[in-house]
Amino acid sequence: PRRDCSLSRLLRRLLSARRSLEICLFAFSSPQLSHAVQLLHRRGVRGRIVTDAQYMGLQGSQIGHLRRIQVRHDQESGYMHHKFAIVDRRMLITGSLNWTTEAIQQNRENVLVVEDAEYVKPFLDEFERIWEEYNPTNYTFFP
Amino acid sequence: PRRDCSLSRLLRRLLSARRSLEICLFAFSSPQLSHAVQLLHRRGVRGRIVTDAQYMGLQGSQIGHLRRIQVRHDQESGYMHHKFAIVDRRMLITGSLNWTTEAIQQNRENVLVVEDAEYVKPFLDEFERIWEEYNPTNYTFFP
Repeated sequence: PRRDCSLSRLLRRLLSARRSLEICLFAFSSPQLSHAVQLLHRRGVRGRIVTDAQYMGLQGSQIGHLRRIQVRHDQESGYMHHKFAIVDRRMLITGSLNWTTEAIQQNRENVLVVEDAEYVKPFLDEFERIWEEYNPTNYTFFP
Repeated sequence: PRRDCSLSRLLRRLLSARRSLEICLFAFSSPQLSHAVQLLHRRGVRGRIVTDAQYMGLQGSQIGHLRRIQVRHDQESGYMHHKFAIVDRRMLITGSLNWTTEAIQQNRENVLVVEDAEYVKPFLDEFERIWEEYNPTNYTFFP
């Protein structure tokens, strides 16, 4: 947790991705972070995004611009409230920070960057669990 | 990050406190967690709480019930958006989870429990920094 929970530091971590990027975010409206994810996609990094269905419909959400990347969202009344990303299956970026300009510029936030497998693994597992659970082919329209 | 980001597990961690408990939370409205903090106070554990001024005024906030414990809040337009606690200055509990009943019961959340000093120390430092910054004697009423 640093006073300058800085965008440039977060961008640098993300742009270090060479193979894969998993993103699991309640709110994603920062144009700079969205551009970085699109850039990684063009470089051939495999991106997957899980987000919250309610937030993604709000004005300013970047999810619409990320459609070339695989996006899935929850189907529940509760929030998909995670705020983490995993770079190349080895670096976990997690904390209180949603990827919004307001949060980056105005809020008091923390971002933890961890490479110990002991901490990364449960988040990877959670991502894969959510990814399957939010697979559109698993939707139940008539429960 | 576990499916049963369970209240009982969080309660058990908190109730292990013997000397001190620092809490830095955007939203605190869970009656069970509030009771646990009050119980620790009666047991002589030194509690300090930092919270967000906007959220603490909302209906359901537990902050009013925690007045016997030292409470400070931000003075900024942005959010004090952290969601962490530190038990006995050695165990960090952090993640996406606000201490609200809705979040515990309905949301997809993560809680990370870490005892490595390498990770605990920056959060302790951030707490002390915020605690000083939000000291009422430092308020500026006529900027």
